Amino acid sequence: MVQIYTGNGKGKTTAAIGLAIRTLGRGNKVCLIQLMKNAAFGEILFLKNFSNIDIFQFGTKEFVNLKTPTKTDFEEAEKAFQKTKDAINSKKYDLIIIDEINVAVSWKLLPVEKQLELMELTTNAEIVMTGRHASKEVLAKADLVTEMKEIKHYFAKGIPARKGIEF
Amino acid sequence: MVQIYTGNGKGKTTAAIGLAIRTLGRGNKVCLIQLMKNAAFGEILFLKNFSNIDIFQFGTKEFVNLKTPTKTDFEEAEKAFQKTKDAINSKKYDLIIIDEINVAVSWKLLPVEKQLELMELTTNAEIVMTGRHASKEVLAKADLVTEMKEIKHYFAKGIPARKGIEF
Repeated sequence: MVQIYTGNGKGKTTAAIGLAIRTLGRGNKVCLIQLMKNAAFGEILFLKNFSNIDIFQFGTKEFVNLKTPTKTDFEEAEKAFQKTKDAINSKKYDLIIIDEINVAVSWKLLPVEKQLELMELTTNAEIVMTGRHASKEVLAKADLVTEMKEIKHYFAKGIPARKGIEF
Repeated sequence: MVQIYTGNGKGKTTAAIGLAIRTLGRGNKVCLIQLMKNAAFGEILFLKNFSNIDIFQFGTKEFVNLKTPTKTDFEEAEKAFQKTKDAINSKKYDLIIIDEINVAVSWKLLPVEKQLELMELTTNAEIVMTGRHASKEVLAKADLVTEMKEIKHYFAKGIPARKGIEF
């Protein structure tokens, strides 16, 4: 099954992480691949201690500049794609999370065809793809789609991102 | 801050669990209170091993019968309310999750006034309340609201709930 968590609201990455915890709690194996992230968020600091989860981050220390992505940004997205393909084909995971892939595709760091290719691979693993702006083709092909919709956010009140809550 | 995760889509409880992991990863303390749940879902099996998170479940082994809730269902909801109040007043947590409280209120196991009372308590903790059908008063008072909206779900294709994914 392929699940998509998209939308402009809070909870896409955390829902994927929560699913990882549920899977780990059942003694199953998880692979977490993150695009455009190269930083130890709270969840990574915690999860890196467990042998049943493999974590791979692709991206630079700086956040991608949407207007002028660098050659490295494209290369990292391609590496993430290859790693995901290998992870799916290895058949060793029960859950594979590809965090922010929807955003990487919407920013054209990765062609949508490659995301669709990943969705078509034969696997028994649950595949979760997160990020805003999932493309129509991806939504059409997915088995499950949840839109995390922002109804109200404290960022609008000027509250900055807080360690342990937003990252 | 009080965050609400509501809506008919997947990802409300898992987003709260993911936030718990982010908080734990920063070395902070979490309290997870679950209403109408008395079963070791995957996330509980995993999280119960860590000293920085306290978990309390309120409910019976059987799921609440919406049409004829028992006296015990009401008593358990009241106990969950008291425990939450104590947890908030103890000032010892950085994140307090009250899982399914929106549902308990919508089913009238708990009066909405008690949920609002919890939201008004003075605290530095982040408060997360999950469950479908959050009431209008609760949404109005919250600092953040995400609606997890079901766009497409494999349950509609007849796929049953799976261990490690749905529970």
